[in-house]
Amino acid sequence: MQNTEELVRQLDELERSLYVFHHLSALVELDANTAAPHDTTVGRSAVMEYLSREQYSAFASEKTGELLRALSERKAELSARDARRVEYLKRDYDHMKAIPQDEYVAYDVLVSEAQNVWVKAKQENDFASFAPYLEKIVASQLRFIEYRDPEHKKKPYEVLLDDYEYGLTEDFLDNFFAEIKKTIVPLVHQITEHGRQPRTYFLHQEAPIEKQRELSDYLMDVLTIDRNHCAITETEHPFTLEFNKDDVRITTHYHLNEVMSSFYSVMHEGGHALYELHTGDDLRFTALASGASSSIHESISRFFENIIGRSRGFCDFILPKMKELFPEQFKDVVPYEFYKAVNIAQPSLIRTEADELTYCLHIMLRYEIEKGLINREIEVKDLPQVWNAKMKEYLGIDVPNDSKGVLQDTHWSGGMFGYFPTYALGNAYGAQMCERMKQDVDVEACCAKGDLKPVVDWLREHVFQYGCLMDPIPLFEQYCGAKFTPSYYCNYLKEKYSEIYAL
Amino acid sequence: MQNTEELVRQLDELERSLYVFHHLSALVELDANTAAPHDTTVGRSAVMEYLSREQYSAFASEKTGELLRALSERKAELSARDARRVEYLKRDYDHMKAIPQDEYVAYDVLVSEAQNVWVKAKQENDFASFAPYLEKIVASQLRFIEYRDPEHKKKPYEVLLDDYEYGLTEDFLDNFFAEIKKTIVPLVHQITEHGRQPRTYFLHQEAPIEKQRELSDYLMDVLTIDRNHCAITETEHPFTLEFNKDDVRITTHYHLNEVMSSFYSVMHEGGHALYELHTGDDLRFTALASGASSSIHESISRFFENIIGRSRGFCDFILPKMKELFPEQFKDVVPYEFYKAVNIAQPSLIRTEADELTYCLHIMLRYEIEKGLINREIEVKDLPQVWNAKMKEYLGIDVPNDSKGVLQDTHWSGGMFGYFPTYALGNAYGAQMCERMKQDVDVEACCAKGDLKPVVDWLREHVFQYGCLMDPIPLFEQYCGAKFTPSYYCNYLKEKYSEIYAL
Repeated sequence: MQNTEELVRQLDELERSLYVFHHLSALVELDANTAAPHDTTVGRSAVMEYLSREQYSAFASEKTGELLRALSERKAELSARDARRVEYLKRDYDHMKAIPQDEYVAYDVLVSEAQNVWVKAKQENDFASFAPYLEKIVASQLRFIEYRDPEHKKKPYEVLLDDYEYGLTEDFLDNFFAEIKKTIVPLVHQITEHGRQPRTYFLHQEAPIEKQRELSDYLMDVLTIDRNHCAITETEHPFTLEFNKDDVRITTHYHLNEVMSSFYSVMHEGGHALYELHTGDDLRFTALASGASSSIHESISRFFENIIGRSRGFCDFILPKMKELFPEQFKDVVPYEFYKAVNIAQPSLIRTEADELTYCLHIMLRYEIEKGLINREIEVKDLPQVWNAKMKEYLGIDVPNDSKGVLQDTHWSGGMFGYFPTYALGNAYGAQMCERMKQDVDVEACCAKGDLKPVVDWLREHVFQYGCLMDPIPLFEQYCGAKFTPSYYCNYLKEKYSEIYAL
Repeated sequence: MQNTEELVRQLDELERSLYVFHHLSALVELDANTAAPHDTTVGRSAVMEYLSREQYSAFASEKTGELLRALSERKAELSARDARRVEYLKRDYDHMKAIPQDEYVAYDVLVSEAQNVWVKAKQENDFASFAPYLEKIVASQLRFIEYRDPEHKKKPYEVLLDDYEYGLTEDFLDNFFAEIKKTIVPLVHQITEHGRQPRTYFLHQEAPIEKQRELSDYLMDVLTIDRNHCAITETEHPFTLEFNKDDVRITTHYHLNEVMSSFYSVMHEGGHALYELHTGDDLRFTALASGASSSIHESISRFFENIIGRSRGFCDFILPKMKELFPEQFKDVVPYEFYKAVNIAQPSLIRTEADELTYCLHIMLRYEIEKGLINREIEVKDLPQVWNAKMKEYLGIDVPNDSKGVLQDTHWSGGMFGYFPTYALGNAYGAQMCERMKQDVDVEACCAKGDLKPVVDWLREHVFQYGCLMDPIPLFEQYCGAKFTPSYYCNYLKEKYSEIYAL
């Protein structure tokens, strides 16, 4: 019988090897999205398949099972941190082990192929070419759900939700979306009918890319991001990728005529980066060394993007910098006007370009569709018409083609069913968190001064440092000191938009 | 007993896994040199150590030994290609297997650390901080030589030469350097004493980086490089990195006041890239899927950089493009003047900035020093004074500090003893190859028209497609139709520089 110390040493070793797989997979993905030439998928696919197979062999092995069992039995002897590592890994182990290795690897190959097909389908507005892949992905997911939850303890879609927000239920989300819909839809109608749209022409003038890069550097500084541990680069779609807490990468995309696009991408991805950079030192290279969940992560990124970045104070603070970098474009712009312009609310086609108010409607539509797919109430072939009908219903918009409709997002091509709701939930989490933060920090003053250090310090103490030490829902309740309710978010939107549009 | 077909299938599988290790190690290296933030070595080291250990386990195993033995015994049943794969892998296997796994991994960790120490030592002109690492590296290499060649069939340094140019001997190199020294040293003296240096001021004016990037794109086109399979990016020191024949990366570095620096880096690295892009399709993902040796590789890159890129014809062809991109800088420059300026010969401190004529003297000095280190005739602590004395003797130059002297190159920090001679040999290989090529291709006309396709086609047919199917020396003799002699290179230098300097 091995002693507990030796078992923990084996756990360290296992986690170290999982870290290596994580690092290498992330690196292959980063390279594919940044530096790799166009026609290079063959070599990369061979590598991804190998990594997938090896990771399965290393992790979903009898040896791992025995180690986790042995450690679980000695939970009393373990530190709280180590006990959590075992609990957390056990969950991942059970998930992976439930799926046969060949199916696991084949699925990784499938989604990798599907993403290439999706890119082309989106470019060519050709949903039909993508549909067979999506059908296979949905079929795989349905099979995996059966493997993972053979006794049907959860609803099928909830098995997938667990991957992004452990413990999230359909009922919870149904209520959540019903609640925010009650706030958002009337507000959108009021604005569409009675609101006077602000001038925004200055946001759509040519803004030299070099100057936009300078702006990114400035924003990284304002966000207090340590550039020795966080690089920023350029990709088609912005994202954040973390290797470990000392090595985080964010990306942005510069649009010549949309200076605020990259601005808010940097604020958003910068929020994700801050979270990873400030997870606890003692979690480094363990399974707990990352943000607690997708919703919590989005609550941070959307907080920096919107609640901070689109606040009156921050807009006033940043305008002089905009005038310095883009003197011609911003010369006639006065503070309140800038604030109103970056907060314009207008139903639109593309989720990633949606404003803060209508954003959650885009998510609600996706939530309903993917729930329908997983519950076999919607078929893949019907997706375009279902999509277009919901866009008309929720946003009052006609979708001109599938590229700007059902094909716009990458998530489904990557099999990420259950991720979308975390965007909306993140918005609402962030609003409630901010109210709690205000008890300790003068958030408005921080925005007005562009001094975000007190905000980041609060987040490090109450959120970031915990990594995955706690499940997201209890963690949220701990730092907010209350259960979640969408009312903070609804109130925030109502107050903000009533004021801006003088409703 | 397994049948031969099954054994070849196992060989495919082994090579596929070696490909994955190659791809991943290259990717980690590329990332470290391009996108990674500064303070991120901890995670990367963990990954490199893991890869090193796993690669050893996968390759230097009993299983591999048995497979290679079984295939060797059935050589008669194998295709020429498969027989060569076995022969080639067996050599690598013997080399790796000779070194105990822990020492192998520890050495990889040591050189990874040493490279970080070297970067700092060079920045801070502090040879003493680097010396202990270099001592350990030399000691490791001496131990490895003993492991690899316990019966002393070769001279110690020749064991290392085998890694870069299989079959190369010390005698061969001693003769080679003696021969080219006889040509170069008098030429350098004549130029220093009697030659009139051309005007070069226009090469040292500010040249906007954006325009230099355009120039790179143009040169990539002229080189006929398919950008769908070859990306160009920016690093501190230019290099080429190949994942597979469909995925090659080159890098350059833009110096605001040295427009020709990146120009010739692109020509040089572009040459390396062309080689990899045009290795045979049937070698893809096998052990033979790369250039035949460092010398052959350098013969191609230096050929494009110098024999093509610094030819009268190519200079005349490219000057109008230079005038188009940098009108102010090049407005008064006439063709012959441009040609002379890019061919200026002048003893200088830094190898990578050396001109075509004095370049080999820099290599000769390094050759003599590393041979001395491996033969225990020179001690690490004495390197600065040995270096400086040789610089004075061969190039007539006083070395102001170690950063610009013994610390200038990265090779020794990476344990790459035996690589330097291949640079000089490559120059001479290229000159002889070019004479052979001229029997089939009007090289001068190609340069003058900027139409390099016939040149690339010839190289693909006679050199590139073979990958590692043949050892470098027989391959060279096959495509040149003769044994190697330095006389082609010596004549080339004599003719070229006598004309330019009217000697």
